[in-house]
Amino acid sequence: NMRGYTQLRYNQPLSGDRVAGDPELKSVGDKSIGNNSNFFLRRVRLVFSGDINDYISMYLQPDFATDNGDLNFAQLRDAYFDLHFDKAHEYRIRAGQSKIPFGWENLQSSQNRLTLDRADALNSAVPSERDLGLMAYWTPTDVQKLWKNLSKKGLKTSGDYGVLGVGVYNGQGINKAEGNDGMYLVAHSTYPLELDFMGKAMRGQVLEVGADAISGQFNRSTSSCSAGTPCYLNGEKVTSSIKSSDSLKNNSEDRVGVHAVLFPQPFGLQAEWNWGAGATLNAETRTVERQHLSGGYVQAMYKIDEVFGTKGTMIPYVKWQTYDGAWKGSTNAPRVQVDEVEAGVEYQINKALELTVAYASMSRTNIADATKADYLKQAGGDLIRTQLQVNY
Amino acid sequence: NMRGYTQLRYNQPLSGDRVAGDPELKSVGDKSIGNNSNFFLRRVRLVFSGDINDYISMYLQPDFATDNGDLNFAQLRDAYFDLHFDKAHEYRIRAGQSKIPFGWENLQSSQNRLTLDRADALNSAVPSERDLGLMAYWTPTDVQKLWKNLSKKGLKTSGDYGVLGVGVYNGQGINKAEGNDGMYLVAHSTYPLELDFMGKAMRGQVLEVGADAISGQFNRSTSSCSAGTPCYLNGEKVTSSIKSSDSLKNNSEDRVGVHAVLFPQPFGLQAEWNWGAGATLNAETRTVERQHLSGGYVQAMYKIDEVFGTKGTMIPYVKWQTYDGAWKGSTNAPRVQVDEVEAGVEYQINKALELTVAYASMSRTNIADATKADYLKQAGGDLIRTQLQVNY
Amino acid sequence: NMRGYTQLRYNQPLSGDRVAGDPELKSVGDKSIGNNSNFFLRRVRLVFSGDINDYISMYLQPDFATDNGDLNFAQLRDAYFDLHFDKAHEYRIRAGQSKIPFGWENLQSSQNRLTLDRADALNSAVPSERDLGLMAYWTPTDVQKLWKNLSKKGLKTSGDYGVLGVGVYNGQGINKAEGNDGMYLVAHSTYPLELDFMGKAMRGQVLEVGADAISGQFNRSTSSCSAGTPCYLNGEKVTSSIKSSDSLKNNSEDRVGVHAVLFPQPFGLQAEWNWGAGATLNAETRTVERQHLSGGYVQAMYKIDEVFGTKGTMIPYVKWQTYDGAWKGSTNAPRVQVDEVEAGVEYQINKALELTVAYASMSRTNIADATKADYLKQAGGDLIRTQLQVNY
Repeated sequence: NMRGYTQLRYNQPLSGDRVAGDPELKSVGDKSIGNNSNFFLRRVRLVFSGDINDYISMYLQPDFATDNGDLNFAQLRDAYFDLHFDKAHEYRIRAGQSKIPFGWENLQSSQNRLTLDRADALNSAVPSERDLGLMAYWTPTDVQKLWKNLSKKGLKTSGDYGVLGVGVYNGQGINKAEGNDGMYLVAHSTYPLELDFMGKAMRGQVLEVGADAISGQFNRSTSSCSAGTPCYLNGEKVTSSIKSSDSLKNNSEDRVGVHAVLFPQPFGLQAEWNWGAGATLNAETRTVERQHLSGGYVQAMYKIDEVFGTKGTMIPYVKWQTYDGAWKGSTNAPRVQVDEVEAGVEYQINKALELTVAYASMSRTNIADATKADYLKQAGGDLIRTQLQVNY
Repeated sequence: NMRGYTQLRYNQPLSGDRVAGDPELKSVGDKSIGNNSNFFLRRVRLVFSGDINDYISMYLQPDFATDNGDLNFAQLRDAYFDLHFDKAHEYRIRAGQSKIPFGWENLQSSQNRLTLDRADALNSAVPSERDLGLMAYWTPTDVQKLWKNLSKKGLKTSGDYGVLGVGVYNGQGINKAEGNDGMYLVAHSTYPLELDFMGKAMRGQVLEVGADAISGQFNRSTSSCSAGTPCYLNGEKVTSSIKSSDSLKNNSEDRVGVHAVLFPQPFGLQAEWNWGAGATLNAETRTVERQHLSGGYVQAMYKIDEVFGTKGTMIPYVKWQTYDGAWKGSTNAPRVQVDEVEAGVEYQINKALELTVAYASMSRTNIADATKADYLKQAGGDLIRTQLQVNY
Repeated sequence: NMRGYTQLRYNQPLSGDRVAGDPELKSVGDKSIGNNSNFFLRRVRLVFSGDINDYISMYLQPDFATDNGDLNFAQLRDAYFDLHFDKAHEYRIRAGQSKIPFGWENLQSSQNRLTLDRADALNSAVPSERDLGLMAYWTPTDVQKLWKNLSKKGLKTSGDYGVLGVGVYNGQGINKAEGNDGMYLVAHSTYPLELDFMGKAMRGQVLEVGADAISGQFNRSTSSCSAGTPCYLNGEKVTSSIKSSDSLKNNSEDRVGVHAVLFPQPFGLQAEWNWGAGATLNAETRTVERQHLSGGYVQAMYKIDEVFGTKGTMIPYVKWQTYDGAWKGSTNAPRVQVDEVEAGVEYQINKALELTVAYASMSRTNIADATKADYLKQAGGDLIRTQLQVNY
């Protein structure tokens, strides 16, 4: 089978482009946030998937909007195989490049997600959500059925990554060559509770709760600064971001996360949080050292069916997120502080077409380029963000 | 649906490789024109397209012959969606990366084009023909039907981009990150006139005429030359092509173009011209300044059906083109002078297989590499050009 | 039609990572052989193929595991068309990028190959097995039928590249721009002999024998070393690997190869050898000069059907290979010495899933990076190698 989706975005800063000297507001989740930006293809996906036989299924997903100097090259997101041990598909091994089961929003497809980007606190654990390895999942038949029923009602599940899952993976990040002998371990749990037992008021309501943990080692690269193009750290020009590159190797990271999701029938709530410690650039001593990190988000939404008397659905939402800790997916593993409120509405005009319009007020640490003067400076701004998504 | 086509080329300079010291003949339309060249995959295309529902259709076209250091990487050409307002598909919005409706030959697919490359004068307006934005098109039902009938007869239309179209797009060029806040505007018109009213001699003949305009702002990059690898400008070695990089930003460009096409039944004529002004490198002052540009082409062709008693079709053609103006798709936006005559024949052996053999005599400004001594020098030569095209 | 396969690998050196100072063991056939390595996607392939009409068929195969800075970009392997001259498909021209018919194992798909990598001696003739050009093949109907019957029995043929084939191609290597006007020539022959005439003991046994030759010219690039990052040659630091770059152009190469394959019913034998001469880096004089090369492999295997009473098949094998000569696919065309023994077993669990586990003892010249001190040093080691292959 072939399917896919495309996201076309247009972000407009209400506060205007930055004035010279002010740090530029950039976001790791959307390269078209920043100065001098107009239309942008955030995701162009094509999925080739299918059951090869009763026990083996395949899933291959390239993205056609990958930046590699120029834009819009094709690069793999997923390339995995489910090896099922039973015909009911309760037990399976997933082999290849696939999503790492840490966090609930991380596992939910961007095709389904209400907000434009994932929360940084959880996404920083697994940048681009995927890595290469082996995962084992267990999903009882009744939970498979419940998740399918929720999807049929138009509710946004995070997909089937088991009620329990454990895995081992490289840990260097999506599409990056492994850099050390150490691997990451991940453990995942989630369970959708039917709240009918709480009385008539809660009939049909579903609350999903769970917890995850990861632990592992990764290597970081450092910025290539020189006397000619110095880096900016802590207000000074330096010729190297890191005093000794020894501190870039075999950095350990450990995290635990929790999540709770009340599916919107019609009112919903969603919250996640994670805590941990990991390799982080200390800009004063210019070393990479183990520092604490924490953050999460809370989101409320309301599902309105048959808007304007049509088959369309509208879901207004508001999301608050915060994160303070390392962004390991970036060179030097710099420490970032993120605070953001996003209020918007997703309008599902029909099955093929979705329009999202949101207002976002954000404050983020600029980690775009170590050779620019605003590196590691805090930048803030208000934006109107729009996205047209077509599902095919 | 899936379909596609591949073009395998072989160009042979009759005048031989250049002698040392002479400038090398290179063409922006075909990288295999130049020294040391043999077989070349010019285009390897795969199109995924279809109607998602009555009002929404999708079109996704990667090219598998993109140079990104090594050859033959996959990169997006088109990724757009038609959002129709009526079931007859007379009115629609096209959202995403698609062809910018400036010029007639620009809009015609390379799968259909008779000549090997597009004329530089018109193509310089929108290098690679595509950009990211929103277009609105209007195509009355009778014109839709006329174009379809022409295609059925084996006549090469330019595809349906409306009889009227307007659009807004980034303007930085295909698969390039937007570089400024300004956008490009485009307005397009074309109309196929049935000439039956002119009497029996013109029965069934169709003449398509129209005019287009674009206006917008773009940013240019400049060559990275240094003391170690100097650039060559105006006969001198310089360490930077541009004195101040300020002149590279927010360059304005404005163009108008006209076209007229008599479809070959059996004799056809096709001509386009455009005039305008845009940012252009002044090699003497080493600044980018607004200069005039103009150019176009005239092409004659003759369609012979059932050649050799088979179902094959042969179309001999001759094309003359000229252009004097900026090539904005190249670093520094250098001024080029192009004069070319191409005489050839396209032999459609069957629906799947086309062989084109052409003789070309061309004179072009070398803009391949600013660090080489023949940069901006005029080079000329005669070539035999061949192309095998397979449609699938 | 669409089909494909993916190979997920995991190599574990028994001898451990190299000690500092020792040269690192790397292999041209598998980038995940080396220090600091875990899971690796060796091949992620998708094939689009089909008969367009009775005389023309197409084959388009991108690989989604190409390294281009980051991993897993999509790049072309094959893009060719068979132009048949007769309905029986005995005579045809293959145009485009396709496998060069030199060697038997080179032509066999990696999807079918028993061992993890191809033998270096033969593969060094055509790195990545493919190039851009025109080939002519002749395959009599009875041989077409015999090869199909062997495949149906689960025997691994090398695919239909004719019993005779000749071709002309660029010769610069897969997905590399042509670098000179000279082209390569290739001639290929192979024939599967039914051994029934040798008596009852040989009933149904098939022995395929043949010989190939190539001759041509290619250009080599050289390592970019400088005073800041010197190269290591012959134990010395140098600022350039080659004294004069003249010796990198128009290097000639000539090879002949022979092969013999007894298909395993149940016992099989396979052997190939090639001899020749080609451009090779002389590390002492720092020039590229014509030197002799030779090498090949011998492989024995045993096919066990219905293992454990299932429909699975198991094929234990042992392969010995050696090569001494230039590796033209690498910068500088360095001389390598390879000696390797691999003993393993391929377990075809079902049509979709294959697991290969092998023990390999290898000695190879390190040609990974001329700026590292172990460049051109001989490295050895023992590995356990595993591969999970999914066919879809």
